[in-house]
Amino acid sequence: MPTIDDVLTKIDANQAGALERLFALLAIPSISTDAAHSQDCSRAADWLVRELQSLGFEASLRETEGKPMVVGRVKGTRRDAPHVLFYGHYDVQPPEPLGLWEKPPFEPRLVDDPNGQRIVARGASDDKGQLMTFVEACRAFYETGGPPCDISILFEGEEEIGSPSLPGFMTKSARELKADVMLVCDTSMWDRSTPAVTTMLRGLVYEELILRGANRDLHSGLFGGAAANPIHWLVRILADLHNEDGAVALPGFYDGVEELPEEIAHQWRDLDFSEEGFLRGVGLSTPAGEKNRSVLEMIWSRPTCEINGIVGGYTGVGSKTVLPAQASAKVSFRLVGRQNPERISQNFRNFVRARLPDDVKAEFISHASSPAISVATKNEALRRARRALEAEWGKAPVLIGSGGSIPIVGAFKRELNMDALLIGFSLDDDAVHSPNEKYELSSFHKGTRSWARILAALAA
Amino acid sequence: MPTIDDVLTKIDANQAGALERLFALLAIPSISTDAAHSQDCSRAADWLVRELQSLGFEASLRETEGKPMVVGRVKGTRRDAPHVLFYGHYDVQPPEPLGLWEKPPFEPRLVDDPNGQRIVARGASDDKGQLMTFVEACRAFYETGGPPCDISILFEGEEEIGSPSLPGFMTKSARELKADVMLVCDTSMWDRSTPAVTTMLRGLVYEELILRGANRDLHSGLFGGAAANPIHWLVRILADLHNEDGAVALPGFYDGVEELPEEIAHQWRDLDFSEEGFLRGVGLSTPAGEKNRSVLEMIWSRPTCEINGIVGGYTGVGSKTVLPAQASAKVSFRLVGRQNPERISQNFRNFVRARLPDDVKAEFISHASSPAISVATKNEALRRARRALEAEWGKAPVLIGSGGSIPIVGAFKRELNMDALLIGFSLDDDAVHSPNEKYELSSFHKGTRSWARILAALAA
Repeated sequence: MPTIDDVLTKIDANQAGALERLFALLAIPSISTDAAHSQDCSRAADWLVRELQSLGFEASLRETEGKPMVVGRVKGTRRDAPHVLFYGHYDVQPPEPLGLWEKPPFEPRLVDDPNGQRIVARGASDDKGQLMTFVEACRAFYETGGPPCDISILFEGEEEIGSPSLPGFMTKSARELKADVMLVCDTSMWDRSTPAVTTMLRGLVYEELILRGANRDLHSGLFGGAAANPIHWLVRILADLHNEDGAVALPGFYDGVEELPEEIAHQWRDLDFSEEGFLRGVGLSTPAGEKNRSVLEMIWSRPTCEINGIVGGYTGVGSKTVLPAQASAKVSFRLVGRQNPERISQNFRNFVRARLPDDVKAEFISHASSPAISVATKNEALRRARRALEAEWGKAPVLIGSGGSIPIVGAFKRELNMDALLIGFSLDDDAVHSPNEKYELSSFHKGTRSWARILAALAA
Repeated sequence: MPTIDDVLTKIDANQAGALERLFALLAIPSISTDAAHSQDCSRAADWLVRELQSLGFEASLRETEGKPMVVGRVKGTRRDAPHVLFYGHYDVQPPEPLGLWEKPPFEPRLVDDPNGQRIVARGASDDKGQLMTFVEACRAFYETGGPPCDISILFEGEEEIGSPSLPGFMTKSARELKADVMLVCDTSMWDRSTPAVTTMLRGLVYEELILRGANRDLHSGLFGGAAANPIHWLVRILADLHNEDGAVALPGFYDGVEELPEEIAHQWRDLDFSEEGFLRGVGLSTPAGEKNRSVLEMIWSRPTCEINGIVGGYTGVGSKTVLPAQASAKVSFRLVGRQNPERISQNFRNFVRARLPDDVKAEFISHASSPAISVATKNEALRRARRALEAEWGKAPVLIGSGGSIPIVGAFKRELNMDALLIGFSLDDDAVHSPNEKYELSSFHKGTRSWARILAALAA
C-alpha cells in the first residue's frame, strides 16, 4: 500500500504532464450555449472518457437530448471505505467580448505574475482546471497502486446552461450514480492561501424576455410618438424590477427568504473580508444592491435580480433613426432559502404582462430554474475533508456561502439523498465568465494534492 | 423651343434607361455612418458627377472633411427665368438587420405588386430614387433642347448622419450656391394618388449614451447585488425620460413649442387621415405617445423622444450570467418650433448625470443637432409648383408637415435667405430606414414628370 506521501510525490513529479493534459482540454471550445459548438462539446467529452480509461476507470460517454454525459467508475483498494461520486462540468461560457482577451481564449498559456504563474484560457477556472485537479489526483493513485476507495465520476456538458438534461439522466441512472458522498470542485477558496468549503449555494431563475411592437422596423421621424417603441416598454418594465432601496420589486419575491442564522452571521462577521477591497478589485467603490445589507450577505445569502443582457434597435457605429420592431433582455434571479423558482418565473412573466400596452407582445424563454441549497455542515466526511485541507494548506478552511448556482447538488440531495462536499480552488479574481479567465498554477497543483489528501482521509 | 409635352414624351420614352441608371446608383452601398463604406460614398459621388456631366452640366466633386459634395450647374434657355438649386443626398442608412431583407439590400430589383411595380433596395426611396427623378427630368430637357431655367445641383453624402460638413461648405460656397429658389426631393406624397408639398420639418438631436461600471465583465453570481450594473442604471434613466401621460420629462423640453395655428390645425382635421389605418399598416392599433394629441400632430408638429438603440451584456443565443462592464443607448429627440437643440442636448446630459451613482460613469456622443424649420407657404414659386403637380396627378397637392428632419433647408434659409419647395414622391409604406425599402415605379416615373412640369412652370 502506498502512503499519502508517495501519492503527493507522484503528483509533484507529474506536474509538467498534468499541465499538458489540461491545456489539451482547454483548447477545445466546448461552449454549451452555442449550437455551433455542439461537436466541440462532444470532443471534450470523448477526451475525458479516454483520459479516465487510461487511469483504470471503466468509462463511457452517455448520450442525452443535449450534450453527452461522461460516466466513469473505478474500484478502490479498501473494501470498507466510503464510495465517492465526483462531479464536474466540461462545458464553458461563451468567450465574448473577444476583443477584450489579450490572447485567443482557446489557446491556453502560462502567464507570469507577481503572485506566481497563472493558466489563462476560457474554462481554466470554470471548470476544466478544477475538474482536472481531481482527475490528476486519480492519476497519482493509479500510478502508485490504485485509489483508496471506490470512485465514480460524472462530468456533464450543460452546467453553464442550467443542466437541462441532468434530472432525466439522474433518474434513469440513479442506481449507478448512488454513492456515499458527493464531491464537487466548482467553487472558490477564501483567498489565495486559505481553503474553503462552500455550504450554501444560491438557486437560479434565468429568463429571456422579447417584446414585439410594429411588424417591421420604422423610421423614428415618420412614426416616432405615434407608434409603440418596444425599447421604451422594455426599459420601463426593467426599471420597475427594483425599488429605490435596491430591493427586488417582484410581488412575493422574498417569500421563503430567511434571515441568516446568528451562528453563521457571526462567523461571517469574523471573516477578514474587506468590502472596499472586494469592490476596488473590479474598479468600483460603493456597494450596490439592497440598502443595509453587507456585501457578503448580498453575494452569498440574499436573493438578487440582475439584467444580464439587453438589445434592441440600431447598435452599430454612428446613428440610425430607427424605431425598432423588437427589443429583448436577459434577466436572472439568484435564489436563497425556500424561494420557489417556478413561482418566481411565473411572477416575473405576470409582472411584465401587466405593464404592457395592447400593441406590445411579450415572449419568454426560460434558460434556468433551480432552487437554492444548503449543505449539512455536521457530518464525518466534512470533518475529515477539513482536516485534509488544513494539512495541505497549513490553515483551517473556512465555511462560506457562494453566489453561484450548482443545480446538481440540490438534485442529488433530493433524488439520491447524497450530501455533497463543495471544495474548489478558484479565486475571486479568476475572471470566471469574463475575458482573460485564469486559474492559478498553485490552485491546480495544490488542488490536486488536496484531493489526494481528502480521498485518503475519507478512506482512512 | 420644345413644349412641355415634348419633354414628357421624352421622359416616357426614357423609362427603361432611367431604371437602369437608378439601379446602378442603388448598387453602391454608400452608407455614410459606417467608415468601412467611405470608398462606396466616393464612388456614388463620382457616379453622379459623371451623370451630370453627360447631361450638359459643369459638374465636379468637392472634398470635405467628411463625404464629398457633388456640385453641378447648367444654363437655361430662358434668360429671365428664376435660378433653381436642387438638393438631394446620395448616402443611405445602414441596411441592418440584414436577415429581414428578402434579397440583398444593394441588389436592386423590380417587384410585382397588386398596386403596380416597386423598386426594392436600400436607398430606393431615401433618397436615390427621389434625387434621380430630378436628374431624369434634366435628361429629358437636355435631350429636347436644354432646361428652361438655370439649374444648380447639390448632392451631399452625409444627410443620414446629420450633415456635419454642410454648414462649412455652404459658407465657403455661398456665392456659388445662391439661387432664387431651392428644390428638395426628400419628402412624401399624401397617399399614392395625391401629391403633397411639405411645409414643416422637425429638428433633430441625436445622442449616444455609454454607461460604464466595473473595469471588466463580472460573474453575476459572484458579484450580483454588490456591484453596480450599468444596464440597471441605463434602463432606470431611460424609463425616466417619459411621464405617465407620454410627455417627455426632460426639464425645459417644451420651451419654444407652440400650439398649431388654428388655420393649419383646421386643414389637418379636414385631411382624410385614418389613425387606425396608419397604425394598422405597421401592425399596430393604438396611438402611443402624448395623450390627447392626434397622430398627425405627434408625427408632424409635436416634439418626441425615442430610444433608437440599446445594447449591453450578453445578447447572443442562450444564457450567460454576466454582469457587464458597460451598456449604451442611442436616443433621439425630434424638435419643433423654437426648441433649442444645444439646450436640449445639454439638458439630456445633465438629466443622465444627475441620476448616476458614483460608480457609474457616463460618456456622450452627439450624432445630430438641428432645429425645426417652417417653409413660407405664400409665394409665387409654391403657387406654380402646386399647379404643376395638379396637372400631373389630376389632384391638388396638400400642404403637410413631416416628422423627418432635413437640416439643409433651415441652413439655406438662414445663410442664403432661400425659400425651399419640399416636394417628394415617397409613400408612408416605403419602409424608409427599414428592411426591404422600396420606391413605387409610379413615384419614379410620375415624379420625374412632375419635376419637368414644375421647372417649366417656374420658368414660364
